[in-house]
Amino acid sequence: MWQGRFSGKPDKLMQEFSQSVSFDQRLWREDIQGSLAYAAELQRIGILTKKELADIKKGFRQITEEIEAGKFQWKVELEDVHMNIESRLTQLIGDAGKKLHTGRSRNDQVATDLRMWCWRRATELVKAAQALGRVIVERAHEHMDVIIPAYTHLQRAQPVRLSHQLAAYAGWMADDAGFVDFQRLLTMLDSPLGAGACTGNSFGVDQHELAGAIAAATDRGLRQRKVIHNSLRAVGDRDFALDLVYACARCMSHLSRIAEDLILWSTAEFGFITLGDAVTTGSSIMPQKRNPDACELVRGKTGRVVGHLMSLFTLLKGLPMTYNRDLQEDKEAVFDATDQTLACLRVMALVFSKENFKVNRERIQAHLDSGAGYMEAMNVADWLVLQGVPFRDGHDITGRLVKYVEQKGMRFADLTAKDLAAVDKRLKPELLKELSLEALVERKQVYAGTARARVLERLAELKSWLGESR
Amino acid sequence: MWQGRFSGKPDKLMQEFSQSVSFDQRLWREDIQGSLAYAAELQRIGILTKKELADIKKGFRQITEEIEAGKFQWKVELEDVHMNIESRLTQLIGDAGKKLHTGRSRNDQVATDLRMWCWRRATELVKAAQALGRVIVERAHEHMDVIIPAYTHLQRAQPVRLSHQLAAYAGWMADDAGFVDFQRLLTMLDSPLGAGACTGNSFGVDQHELAGAIAAATDRGLRQRKVIHNSLRAVGDRDFALDLVYACARCMSHLSRIAEDLILWSTAEFGFITLGDAVTTGSSIMPQKRNPDACELVRGKTGRVVGHLMSLFTLLKGLPMTYNRDLQEDKEAVFDATDQTLACLRVMALVFSKENFKVNRERIQAHLDSGAGYMEAMNVADWLVLQGVPFRDGHDITGRLVKYVEQKGMRFADLTAKDLAAVDKRLKPELLKELSLEALVERKQVYAGTARARVLERLAELKSWLGESR
Amino acid sequence: MWQGRFSGKPDKLMQEFSQSVSFDQRLWREDIQGSLAYAAELQRIGILTKKELADIKKGFRQITEEIEAGKFQWKVELEDVHMNIESRLTQLIGDAGKKLHTGRSRNDQVATDLRMWCWRRATELVKAAQALGRVIVERAHEHMDVIIPAYTHLQRAQPVRLSHQLAAYAGWMADDAGFVDFQRLLTMLDSPLGAGACTGNSFGVDQHELAGAIAAATDRGLRQRKVIHNSLRAVGDRDFALDLVYACARCMSHLSRIAEDLILWSTAEFGFITLGDAVTTGSSIMPQKRNPDACELVRGKTGRVVGHLMSLFTLLKGLPMTYNRDLQEDKEAVFDATDQTLACLRVMALVFSKENFKVNRERIQAHLDSGAGYMEAMNVADWLVLQGVPFRDGHDITGRLVKYVEQKGMRFADLTAKDLAAVDKRLKPELLKELSLEALVERKQVYAGTARARVLERLAELKSWLGESR
Amino acid sequence: MWQGRFSGKPDKLMQEFSQSVSFDQRLWREDIQGSLAYAAELQRIGILTKKELADIKKGFRQITEEIEAGKFQWKVELEDVHMNIESRLTQLIGDAGKKLHTGRSRNDQVATDLRMWCWRRATELVKAAQALGRVIVERAHEHMDVIIPAYTHLQRAQPVRLSHQLAAYAGWMADDAGFVDFQRLLTMLDSPLGAGACTGNSFGVDQHELAGAIAAATDRGLRQRKVIHNSLRAVGDRDFALDLVYACARCMSHLSRIAEDLILWSTAEFGFITLGDAVTTGSSIMPQKRNPDACELVRGKTGRVVGHLMSLFTLLKGLPMTYNRDLQEDKEAVFDATDQTLACLRVMALVFSKENFKVNRERIQAHLDSGAGYMEAMNVADWLVLQGVPFRDGHDITGRLVKYVEQKGMRFADLTAKDLAAVDKRLKPELLKELSLEALVERKQVYAGTARARVLERLAELKSWLGESR
Repeated sequence: MWQGRFSGKPDKLMQEFSQSVSFDQRLWREDIQGSLAYAAELQRIGILTKKELADIKKGFRQITEEIEAGKFQWKVELEDVHMNIESRLTQLIGDAGKKLHTGRSRNDQVATDLRMWCWRRATELVKAAQALGRVIVERAHEHMDVIIPAYTHLQRAQPVRLSHQLAAYAGWMADDAGFVDFQRLLTMLDSPLGAGACTGNSFGVDQHELAGAIAAATDRGLRQRKVIHNSLRAVGDRDFALDLVYACARCMSHLSRIAEDLILWSTAEFGFITLGDAVTTGSSIMPQKRNPDACELVRGKTGRVVGHLMSLFTLLKGLPMTYNRDLQEDKEAVFDATDQTLACLRVMALVFSKENFKVNRERIQAHLDSGAGYMEAMNVADWLVLQGVPFRDGHDITGRLVKYVEQKGMRFADLTAKDLAAVDKRLKPELLKELSLEALVERKQVYAGTARARVLERLAELKSWLGESR
Repeated sequence: MWQGRFSGKPDKLMQEFSQSVSFDQRLWREDIQGSLAYAAELQRIGILTKKELADIKKGFRQITEEIEAGKFQWKVELEDVHMNIESRLTQLIGDAGKKLHTGRSRNDQVATDLRMWCWRRATELVKAAQALGRVIVERAHEHMDVIIPAYTHLQRAQPVRLSHQLAAYAGWMADDAGFVDFQRLLTMLDSPLGAGACTGNSFGVDQHELAGAIAAATDRGLRQRKVIHNSLRAVGDRDFALDLVYACARCMSHLSRIAEDLILWSTAEFGFITLGDAVTTGSSIMPQKRNPDACELVRGKTGRVVGHLMSLFTLLKGLPMTYNRDLQEDKEAVFDATDQTLACLRVMALVFSKENFKVNRERIQAHLDSGAGYMEAMNVADWLVLQGVPFRDGHDITGRLVKYVEQKGMRFADLTAKDLAAVDKRLKPELLKELSLEALVERKQVYAGTARARVLERLAELKSWLGESR
Repeated sequence: MWQGRFSGKPDKLMQEFSQSVSFDQRLWREDIQGSLAYAAELQRIGILTKKELADIKKGFRQITEEIEAGKFQWKVELEDVHMNIESRLTQLIGDAGKKLHTGRSRNDQVATDLRMWCWRRATELVKAAQALGRVIVERAHEHMDVIIPAYTHLQRAQPVRLSHQLAAYAGWMADDAGFVDFQRLLTMLDSPLGAGACTGNSFGVDQHELAGAIAAATDRGLRQRKVIHNSLRAVGDRDFALDLVYACARCMSHLSRIAEDLILWSTAEFGFITLGDAVTTGSSIMPQKRNPDACELVRGKTGRVVGHLMSLFTLLKGLPMTYNRDLQEDKEAVFDATDQTLACLRVMALVFSKENFKVNRERIQAHLDSGAGYMEAMNVADWLVLQGVPFRDGHDITGRLVKYVEQKGMRFADLTAKDLAAVDKRLKPELLKELSLEALVERKQVYAGTARARVLERLAELKSWLGESR
Repeated sequence: MWQGRFSGKPDKLMQEFSQSVSFDQRLWREDIQGSLAYAAELQRIGILTKKELADIKKGFRQITEEIEAGKFQWKVELEDVHMNIESRLTQLIGDAGKKLHTGRSRNDQVATDLRMWCWRRATELVKAAQALGRVIVERAHEHMDVIIPAYTHLQRAQPVRLSHQLAAYAGWMADDAGFVDFQRLLTMLDSPLGAGACTGNSFGVDQHELAGAIAAATDRGLRQRKVIHNSLRAVGDRDFALDLVYACARCMSHLSRIAEDLILWSTAEFGFITLGDAVTTGSSIMPQKRNPDACELVRGKTGRVVGHLMSLFTLLKGLPMTYNRDLQEDKEAVFDATDQTLACLRVMALVFSKENFKVNRERIQAHLDSGAGYMEAMNVADWLVLQGVPFRDGHDITGRLVKYVEQKGMRFADLTAKDLAAVDKRLKPELLKELSLEALVERKQVYAGTARARVLERLAELKSWLGESR
């Protein structure tokens, strides 16, 4: 399509190297919708006749059918999705097809297509994150009264409601949904169509009309779409791709942490949960294994998505203004980063389903009864404060009590008034009745605390945050 | 401060390894402000007396003076900024100091401090990006009528106003300012104070009161601040740091592209601009050199900021819930990423100052006169379209014309009616008068195009986007 | 294959998520070769009969034919390449197939397969890097007498032979070939087979026999192969993958720099070279464009390969000992990183072919004649040193001379004795005859310098470094 | 020092931005040693007199003393370590100092300095990795008979000797030491001195003489050093830095995995080890905490070192040939990456010291006695194979046995002949006596297996690998 001036033919190796149709054909629907919007505008300004526009629409209907039916012949020698579709259109309807590209460039065309695609993908990501969040909130309600150790440094710190920890996970999902939603509004929405190769269209198209038509095609509810203020940026920017991949990496960072917790909780040593058969696998050699593969893969795929972000940053670094062919490398990163993140969100929703997320209450209770980790200790320090002992002194007294208990091989639950007195006379017998994990949990009455009433309030809030997205 | 239970002493090597005071002392102001907010709340709920609160305020006033005067003794054996300041407070005012940490943990304390610091730093970044944008807009107005080649693939594509390209750069700055501003509102604003070690404060502090006090200390205009909904996330999240470093990396990606253009434009071969002595350096061995060091360093520092982002992602991957000591490694990444980005924004404002950004009009004109790059070609294709030739055919005819011109070693400006006819009979003589770069520029009348009127309108818009930030 | 203990079935979504056969089928040849080696050993120690071994060989011959003919039915429900092949084997030959996995695990099996694959791929990379180096050396010989500016800071610094700069590129390729070759010997060569699931095989296989058989299958010339010293590392390490991807990223870093130079040299402004039609493309809208797409794609793909390295590092960070399912994510990174690097090496060899790498001698000469960049300046400083002026003073005098020439708008070639005297009396008239770029080039007689004789010597050395690899 | 031609002064902001002396002063010793080598060569070829050389030596002796005594005045306005030292030299000894830079450039000077520094740093890294490896081998000998679960997917897989797992860690250290050692020989060793600004020295210095002198200064035992074959690469390459930082990141990847295991083992739930007070810390609020901070920081710092590698790759991507100022950004990455890795290696040696790495044998035994994880299962499958049952059938039978045991809430140790028969008649009573973890461990008699004799052999090998480095 650009051979007029060229004598030689592209080398076979080079053709294979530079083609993008093997992966950018995924943009076919956006490409056709963008072209329809552009054709309508060309007709409005008199470049196309009404008949030609009608032919174009008819041609695209047929192409849509061919692609949907898997019958479209994608040709590597036509380089990319744009040329493949335009070439077929001209084959089907003749000269009107040749006119379609008037004043447009593949530079503004591909930017339009990819932004539409990202917008749609962002919508799916928002929904998947919210759906995962909602499943987690359901589990939180079911296990409201289960108390587990909360960890800092992976050492037992304080007792916490399992539902409180689940609410933390759901909160991540609400945040990620909001973050993607914002990125979508901020960057993907802007329309580059009409920027031409890089300095603007010279046939008098109205960029706001084009933006409106694109918006209408992408999202019915959306009345308008901003036009990118500068034609050079319109074809040369890939911030919208960077933002979307960052949003994915950020979300994967959360999923990797959730996955880590579930992997730990399913070990023989923790044993807090048993993951269902549907999300675990066995071993080809060890018949007893029940491996938390879903969670491990989610954790592993985090690197993949972060890698795509790194890839885009390296790609963009130091690129001269406007379009450079390097930018062709943006697509596979965006496709795979969003594919992986979507799949991980959906698989984690399966992991947290009622069938697959089974809580081992007895096992957890046995852990708590063992007294390991001395999670009652902080109660002692707090109690001392309420008796008027400065916190730092209370902390020190309690430290000595822990050392005492540890050296005797006791649990806090086994302490007697005599033990207390042996450590420090400020440790009065009435302290003993305060040493219950349930009591400690219920004393966390602050807004974000793990007391029952607070957790219920926060879950109600989460539910509204996780409602259907725009 | 936590030695009650420990028998051994930390090893010297370990002490040096695990201390953070050498770098987190940078948070001293936020640490004191956070502590003042917390102390006020402790007094409100009766843990501190009014006298104790007054003592604490007095102690912090003295500490502030000591630090500002460079007289404060930072001690590695006290680990971090929090313990150094608390320890000095207790030394100065006794028991009231020991009470300050009641119900608070270094986990919620450091999250509070770092969020306050990030908020302030974000404010500076927004201002610096806007300031750079405004300087660029000034240059765009000055050089409104300079036409340069616009490039795609670093090949001359179409003529463009220099001011249009400068407007693209200013647009990046406006976007970056908006992006940082949003991140600030979205994530840095939320308050973790009152989350305690991880499950919440048990003394009845009001987290919204604390959030309000923190907000008031950080930013006078801000009436309220959200409380993080979940205590586990409050101490374990570092998304606000990730978001800020991402915003920096995104901005650096733009600066690296601007820097690249300026480096190219200052070469002997392009020669579009000469950068002033203040932002270039010479060579230790080649007396004729005028190196664009400022721009090269900006381009190089892009890697550094991206590296910090990758560092944070690796850090967070797979961390179990709540605080892990790994998170101590967040600070230096955030400090350096924002330091570097701020410095680059400021240095680029110097580069774009009237004194340092000198446009070589004659040199540019000589380039245009040379006819190299055949930027008139597209005019031919466009003109053919207006004569009713389908675009794809027009493109092909023009391709043959370019080949003709190239083989004859001519410029487009030298073409005669005979030459045109020799290539294709549809190339009529009246085409010749359309072959001016100025004409081509002025035909880009779309909203985002490079026509004079459009550029002026867009610069006016940019000015309003680049006004003072919140 | 591991369902004995499981009641539920894997979810459809989970099956799709966790399967690897869609990509790891690429390891089929290595999988069969590894299995053949293992089967032979099982027969040697009496687990398999000779008849069973013969059946297995026959079965694998048929499977090889089926795969090569594209007739093999890969099934997602069989998860991976290993299970697909084993399952088909059992279908073909019955019980002997079921015995093959005795004492082996997919953990040591996949490590074996992937190491074999990496070894082979490394061999291809070495050859491709050497081949590219050799093509560049050819070009260097052809253009031995072309002098171009050498740049520091992209400012003209000193004249240099084009062949000298090409020799630098060839040197990178020689280094990269050597680097990959070393990685191959260091890490990919070691054999994990016999490590079992993680603690070792319990049926008495001889790991050195297995290693030898694997080595013989991978590379005829290779007599032995080290056994990995520890079974836990054998199944849990992925350093060999990390090393190979790092070697690719390092090589791409070089290619990106070469590509950048060629892109600059093909601009209208530099114009040093014209790249052939086979490695450039035109524009869909601007008929005059000849875009250096091959080089741009190479530069862009650098980010992709670096991204894969980042992905692997994130993946491995903090993984507990031995195999975790996260490791499944290693394959696509290794496949794509090596595919891209190989393709880039091959395309760059096409770019540097005689047909496509055309040097514009007149254009270069015109640049040199223009005097821009004042590359003669350093000669002046050097000449002053030989007259006994301390270097720092000579540098200063020359700086003033450059300023003089610049302000007068002269070239160094236009200087007269009077001009010299006007700047500094130590600038004697006899200096004038030293001011030739050729003279400056020939004075660089050090081992690594750009004088003709030295460049020829170094090219000869390079040729021997770039000879066929092991 | 390069102001001859410049009229303006560098801006204060720019000076601060572009200076490097605040961090590159760390290269002072290498800078002086490189200069001494260069001065000797200048004297040999007659540029310097013997007297001048003597003066230079004397001057450098004084500067060395000043720096070592902390009395040297580093000046930001002199930009970097090179200019600071040269300027002081000229101040001390006059004209001879001004001659020192004859034919040299900061471009080859800084490459020389940094390569020398990297070589030395690499030596330290090798020693630290070996030292850590040796400490781990000591622990392995001490705990030879402790059996722990080996994990795949963090699920208990098979019993393994603790010493075997420790040997895996020591093996990583041996590999890392070897890897760094190779990088050192491959890349850091080559000498750039004499490359000048970029095309070579024109005064006739002998680059091999210079290389020899540098080698002698860097490492007494080293007789020769390769000269970099091409002057453009000599000043423009940073592969040696990339290689060193990659070696660090690779090593950190291993340390992060070791740290993860130790963090898991020190949890209340696993409890396999207790880390000593010297490498753990307490909590500012929870008196009972004993946090594995050393290990967490090592894990966290992994991201930091990987970040530096990404920083360098981004920096180098697409840089035009030879020196660009971007390269100044290499130093802090190299400094910090190696500082952090060295510190982590040393701290981990402290963690594995006899005092700090305490194994809880009773706790481990209790875990094994609990029967959790059914690690005996694989014995059953293996035993069936020896009875002639094909492995896949044996695996299936065992899977059903595990399910039986699990549903009855039994341990394998509780199984009776009746139970076996209930599952499958091929499970004969004589199987029962095979069900011991010790037996399973001792059956792993392959070279890399966990049987006692094999572990002892491998530890002996490791010891020799971990001997003192070159």
